[in-house]
Amino acid sequence: MKRREFLSGAAVAGAGAAAASTLATPAIAQDKRELKMVTTWPKNFPGLGTSAERWAQRITAMSGGRLSVKVFAAGELVPAFEAFDAVSSGTADLYHGAEYYWQGKSKAFNFFAAVPFGLTATEMNAWIYHGGGQALWDDLSAGFNIKPMLVANTGVQMGGWFNKEINSLEDYKGLKIRMPGLGGEVLRRVGATVVSLPGGEIFPALQSGAIDATEWVGPWNDLAFGFYKVAQYYYYPGFHEPGTSLSGGVNMDVWNGLSAEDKAIIEAAAAAENDFTLAEFNARNGDALDTLVNEHGVDLRMFSDEVMTGIGNAAGEVVAEVAAEDPVTQAIYDSFVAFRSKAIGWSRIADQAYGTARELPYTYKRG
Amino acid sequence: MKRREFLSGAAVAGAGAAAASTLATPAIAQDKRELKMVTTWPKNFPGLGTSAERWAQRITAMSGGRLSVKVFAAGELVPAFEAFDAVSSGTADLYHGAEYYWQGKSKAFNFFAAVPFGLTATEMNAWIYHGGGQALWDDLSAGFNIKPMLVANTGVQMGGWFNKEINSLEDYKGLKIRMPGLGGEVLRRVGATVVSLPGGEIFPALQSGAIDATEWVGPWNDLAFGFYKVAQYYYYPGFHEPGTSLSGGVNMDVWNGLSAEDKAIIEAAAAAENDFTLAEFNARNGDALDTLVNEHGVDLRMFSDEVMTGIGNAAGEVVAEVAAEDPVTQAIYDSFVAFRSKAIGWSRIADQAYGTARELPYTYKRG
Repeated sequence: MKRREFLSGAAVAGAGAAAASTLATPAIAQDKRELKMVTTWPKNFPGLGTSAERWAQRITAMSGGRLSVKVFAAGELVPAFEAFDAVSSGTADLYHGAEYYWQGKSKAFNFFAAVPFGLTATEMNAWIYHGGGQALWDDLSAGFNIKPMLVANTGVQMGGWFNKEINSLEDYKGLKIRMPGLGGEVLRRVGATVVSLPGGEIFPALQSGAIDATEWVGPWNDLAFGFYKVAQYYYYPGFHEPGTSLSGGVNMDVWNGLSAEDKAIIEAAAAAENDFTLAEFNARNGDALDTLVNEHGVDLRMFSDEVMTGIGNAAGEVVAEVAAEDPVTQAIYDSFVAFRSKAIGWSRIADQAYGTARELPYTYKRG
Repeated sequence: MKRREFLSGAAVAGAGAAAASTLATPAIAQDKRELKMVTTWPKNFPGLGTSAERWAQRITAMSGGRLSVKVFAAGELVPAFEAFDAVSSGTADLYHGAEYYWQGKSKAFNFFAAVPFGLTATEMNAWIYHGGGQALWDDLSAGFNIKPMLVANTGVQMGGWFNKEINSLEDYKGLKIRMPGLGGEVLRRVGATVVSLPGGEIFPALQSGAIDATEWVGPWNDLAFGFYKVAQYYYYPGFHEPGTSLSGGVNMDVWNGLSAEDKAIIEAAAAAENDFTLAEFNARNGDALDTLVNEHGVDLRMFSDEVMTGIGNAAGEVVAEVAAEDPVTQAIYDSFVAFRSKAIGWSRIADQAYGTARELPYTYKRG
């Protein structure tokens, strides 16, 4: 999913009143400091809101309480999509969100969250940490007075819930589907009628036939929403978000004022959460998929090669057009696609080949 | 690789002299403390020795120097394979190694590093963090006075370098191959003559024809060893170590004496390194594979389905026999294989299906 629509109803609370308060000022007393973290998630939203809470808790625990982090859900201090501006201006000290929410500032931010037919979670980590991605991201975000870092990842998302079969690319023509962001733009190019709906309105829209299909996240979050009750087919893979990175951003003045110790704590807490959250999505998705298929009899369908090839062509166009918006975005895209080519080469003979071998009919205890 | 043979020549130095020194005693002065970290790696061995150094540096940085960690390469304080005993007894405070090195203590330790046809890196993280693995590991290691945790991962390893083609399972009959550990046992069952050789002796043995084949790690480490100069074929995937976890262990008395703050620092530093090291292996393997194929013309070969099925059958036997050694190992195996089944189900429709789609002939800038 993109969570834009899900969150669009979140209440605006306290934004103006809080605007003039913090910015590098110790909030409690000497040596102790409270940091305000704004997020783009509902309170304790599974996997994302909970990861923000854990990031905060790790920072507090590791600093022995010297840094305490107060987490604000979307709408508590500022609305979800004002989190970036709030941190940029110093209204808040840091955010936990997803970079594609800031694409109104620069299309380049998409590459630090997810783009259609882009990198998987482990490939994103490799590009950001060891492939030049962090330096490009630092430069981009510094223009907005923000220091960015990886803090979580959802892993590969699902293609979505459908009430019409997708057997060929033709079947997208006129299909009414909820798909936000660049993925939605890709489906528009293959003929779909793409709509936006807040999360809470998806279930009744599927049930009434107002829409034919929707994407959301993956089995863990999708099971909780009960989509299996109102949709016939559960398609995979999710080409539109193959490993969505969630990110943290710290106000640059706050960041520059931190000790080396506190910077190290915030960065390691983020990297630890990045590891822990992807593992959580993978574990919970495995459990939930098992429940969906074996308890609820969900009809799992894989998109055909013809469908994925057509969607891949449209994705290639859309992402290249995003890149062409300005020279900074183009430079980030060039780094991203160069890394992607090598990453595909390595994934092909590593995880991909191993996964293929593991499907063979050998004898091994199956749990 | 298993690094046992590579390291077996490492000098024993200072083990006895240091044995009575530390154990929960502040080494410098009040509030400051030096921890001794022993490792199973040569000094700054790429990806593994360097990860141990970074874990130590993160701990020191986050504690503002309150905890300083002195890293000892294999043989500097104790030999590589005495790292576990050194931490158990308190000669050292913590180790950085791989759990299969301790299988002489209990075969169960294999499951916390890698077993043939087992879990990938991200699946290991999911099992340990969110699938019950950590509690089983804590119980196992507590019996040896050690608190264990994940601290790095190599990702999927390669099948190895061969001077004979492997077109069918028959081709393993009489093949002289260097393959340590459980992987070696698997190949023995399909007819190979499995030998042990220290790392430094592999290159001349391949060159002279004393051996027909060897495994090592992956493109990054293999390129550095120059195996492409003396072997014709580079086979994949590495069924024997599909995502080897490296681990940290802390002496339990030291652990229990730490503040909540210092425990949180050591654990988050380990999880951050777990994320950072896998990303490093993936990035460097992608680069090195590109160099091996495009600059050195290496002949990449995928094991056939018939070969992998036969090896899978042998792997299933070997791992089940390991499990049957004692009830503790059996319980860990049962948890492992139950998790593995769900993980395969999820990987199949997530990363695996996405990777397959990404190989289709659609148009997308290739870097």
